Amino acid sequence: MKVRTIAELVGGKAEGDLDREMTSGRALDRAGPGDLAFWESRSGAAALPDTAAGCVIVGPDAVAPGRTLIRARRPRNAFARALRALRPEPPTAPGIHAGAAVSRAAKIAEGVAVGPHAVIESGAAVGRGTVIGPGAFLGAGAQVGEDCRLHAGARVSGGCRIGDRVVLHAGACIGADGFGLVFETDHYEKFPQIGAVVIGDDVEIGANSCVDRGALDDTRIGAGTKLDNLVHIGHNCQIGKHVVMAAQVGLSGGVTVEDYAVLGGQAGIGEGARIGARAQLGGQGGLLPDKTLAKDGVYWGTPARPLRERLAAQARVNRLPKLQEQVKRLRSRLDALEKK
Amino acid sequence: MKVRTIAELVGGKAEGDLDREMTSGRALDRAGPGDLAFWESRSGAAALPDTAAGCVIVGPDAVAPGRTLIRARRPRNAFARALRALRPEPPTAPGIHAGAAVSRAAKIAEGVAVGPHAVIESGAAVGRGTVIGPGAFLGAGAQVGEDCRLHAGARVSGGCRIGDRVVLHAGACIGADGFGLVFETDHYEKFPQIGAVVIGDDVEIGANSCVDRGALDDTRIGAGTKLDNLVHIGHNCQIGKHVVMAAQVGLSGGVTVEDYAVLGGQAGIGEGARIGARAQLGGQGGLLPDKTLAKDGVYWGTPARPLRERLAAQARVNRLPKLQEQVKRLRSRLDALEKK
Amino acid sequence: MKVRTIAELVGGKAEGDLDREMTSGRALDRAGPGDLAFWESRSGAAALPDTAAGCVIVGPDAVAPGRTLIRARRPRNAFARALRALRPEPPTAPGIHAGAAVSRAAKIAEGVAVGPHAVIESGAAVGRGTVIGPGAFLGAGAQVGEDCRLHAGARVSGGCRIGDRVVLHAGACIGADGFGLVFETDHYEKFPQIGAVVIGDDVEIGANSCVDRGALDDTRIGAGTKLDNLVHIGHNCQIGKHVVMAAQVGLSGGVTVEDYAVLGGQAGIGEGARIGARAQLGGQGGLLPDKTLAKDGVYWGTPARPLRERLAAQARVNRLPKLQEQVKRLRSRLDALEKK
Repeated sequence: MKVRTIAELVGGKAEGDLDREMTSGRALDRAGPGDLAFWESRSGAAALPDTAAGCVIVGPDAVAPGRTLIRARRPRNAFARALRALRPEPPTAPGIHAGAAVSRAAKIAEGVAVGPHAVIESGAAVGRGTVIGPGAFLGAGAQVGEDCRLHAGARVSGGCRIGDRVVLHAGACIGADGFGLVFETDHYEKFPQIGAVVIGDDVEIGANSCVDRGALDDTRIGAGTKLDNLVHIGHNCQIGKHVVMAAQVGLSGGVTVEDYAVLGGQAGIGEGARIGARAQLGGQGGLLPDKTLAKDGVYWGTPARPLRERLAAQARVNRLPKLQEQVKRLRSRLDALEKK
Repeated sequence: MKVRTIAELVGGKAEGDLDREMTSGRALDRAGPGDLAFWESRSGAAALPDTAAGCVIVGPDAVAPGRTLIRARRPRNAFARALRALRPEPPTAPGIHAGAAVSRAAKIAEGVAVGPHAVIESGAAVGRGTVIGPGAFLGAGAQVGEDCRLHAGARVSGGCRIGDRVVLHAGACIGADGFGLVFETDHYEKFPQIGAVVIGDDVEIGANSCVDRGALDDTRIGAGTKLDNLVHIGHNCQIGKHVVMAAQVGLSGGVTVEDYAVLGGQAGIGEGARIGARAQLGGQGGLLPDKTLAKDGVYWGTPARPLRERLAAQARVNRLPKLQEQVKRLRSRLDALEKK
Repeated sequence: MKVRTIAELVGGKAEGDLDREMTSGRALDRAGPGDLAFWESRSGAAALPDTAAGCVIVGPDAVAPGRTLIRARRPRNAFARALRALRPEPPTAPGIHAGAAVSRAAKIAEGVAVGPHAVIESGAAVGRGTVIGPGAFLGAGAQVGEDCRLHAGARVSGGCRIGDRVVLHAGACIGADGFGLVFETDHYEKFPQIGAVVIGDDVEIGANSCVDRGALDDTRIGAGTKLDNLVHIGHNCQIGKHVVMAAQVGLSGGVTVEDYAVLGGQAGIGEGARIGARAQLGGQGGLLPDKTLAKDGVYWGTPARPLRERLAAQARVNRLPKLQEQVKRLRSRLDALEKK
């Protein structure tokens, strides 16, 4: 793809050799003549570091005389867009592999690809352009929208409903039973888990992550939300739109997460808690059951506290030796005074 | 199912329209005329909130004149029991799918269902009424009891033994090698992992959870124990009966957990530690290697401390600014005294 | 295997009945006449406890008159070596199962075993002696070396490269997309993930663990490194040789871990952080983004601090009631002085 074409695509302004052909993208320090790269300087008018990249996407004020550049307001975003065009995901030929087990009572739209050893049960429906990977599973009555991608071994249990352009990475498990128990005399019985999981458009769910079905009502994940690997979403959680959860985050049952919230890796959220819109909880943070994080707040630690408060508390603990020293000195002075 | 039948089933007392037909169950605020619901008031004689539910299971003293009710001592438990009857898990037709790979040297009892692409190796045995889901795996010599359910892609490695009525959710992995290493000069060698995993009756293990085989002896999980998703049980752990572990709990090797203990989500237990009967450890709590939680105790934090102690320590840290202020004031007073 | 043969194998010195036949190994307190066991006393010249073991590997100074022994400098290591010989992993007959889906454009070396329902895509290569388990997956162009073992349902995505003698346990997922996002106005777009995963020789990766592919460059795991179950390795991490990570450890993107480092269970490492050679981080410890753990250091807690510092801080918090008491007493004395 020519530099001029990339510039148009990303809404940037090209300089230098506009007809140069780019074939891929790499990091600035590893890029070669056929590679697009990007560079975001902290101060605007800094000089571009040495690089062998054929073309670099830079900010409006970067200094790089004689180089082939594309100037864009947000180089990283422009680079991501360009690279999605330069290196599109290889298409999967549509068709149902002879080794897949697809129920005759499933509705498979045109242009769907079903890989070897995938299983699609009765009443399941798959929208056009979707790719069901090797060994993936759709239970009875499960619905998957258009242009989705279920990677190898991704699993969607019966009755769950998934929107368009959703990506489930390998081993992701949608719709296992929620963890609902009732104690009877001397043992636990199961609280029935008859809700489903409903996932909006453009959601991405990481490898080996688990989203449990609701007990009575549905577990919901809003459009555009992105979950990393090994995340656990308990039954009846209501996750908003464009929420981001890093790897190994765990949500107990009945948690509400509002739009654009961000949870750092290994954060844990107690039953019935609520996370306000755009709130952020740092990695390993823990929110106790039924507690709330205010919208737009930034929180850290267990139990989760506003970041500033948490840092102040840490600083106070770190200053404890000084405080002990002060108390000791006061005592000496008091001893001296009393002897007078 | 008629209200009067449900009342008998749960040992409750019906009031109102005893012949009303219930078809499912939902939460009180979402239930319709065909739905059973339940309501547990905090104080006994409170008034039932507005609801469209056809019938509500309530406590002995709830106030709801004119409503169709079932009175039971523990409404939530009664509701769970009723719903298990109203909405039983759909039966799976017995039979071995043509696309499954079942060794001729495996023993498959009558009434077993084996899904497409399941693999059952030589010497494995499956008890009557058990459902082996799509893509599930039983290694050589593995034994699974009666009326078990292995969901899609659940895996039981060679030689492991599983009781009756056990549920393994999708992707659960029983019997991977334990993490045993010996250091030799400049690299690690494997400490052989030749024990098995032995799981009692009525155990439920969550999606993508892992229970490792023992090194020399077996890893054991007692009857009635319930593990949520993404739980890790290290080699040679000895888990008692009716233990509950929430999602993402991790146990190192050789941990003992006694009957009825409860571990909150993301709790972590060090090698060789012991958790007493009925002890509870809060979410994200951490027990150091070789330490013990006393039976019946309630613990929180890392390192795990009795909950009261932990809360008191937190409160003291929160009061540190006040202590610093007190010290400052003492110093001023002392300054004044010394100047006299 | 005779005691004398075992002694030779482990470089130890046999005593007693050198022709006794050992058939397996067990823990000292459970071993029988055909079992090898081992015993490491804390003090050198202690007396071997009672045991029914047929032969015990002990240290040079252990006291056990009349017993059949093998003396070795490091009994546990010697035992592990002996047991690997006594109980070798059962061999898997080479050959491609009729129920596997292997592309004609894949290169499968001699002596490879491919289990039922495994999938090997076009351009993938498998080295001699490697076992591809039931339902395992190799994406297009993936390369797996010699004498590797992919357990049931292990997955290697397209283009990833794996060395020799590598073990991937059940459900391990190599090469899912990294978690790279760019924010565009009101939603997230994917930052392309076109790097691969490159894994060195003798690496072992636990059940349901995930190693993500790099964004632009590769994610790398050095030779001899061992990861336990449910570990998450983010995109572009650079893991050295002989690193050990216990279960449920999580690494964000771009983390560097140098040779021989050890991470305790559930530890979490922030983006771009660096862990020096041989450094150790205790279980549940957390290292903030872009921070460094010095080589050879021992760290604990979140944020990670040198272990001594962390323990001292804890001790100070525990002594707070005493400090409060001291301040109170100073105030009383000051009150008395002022009244004079």
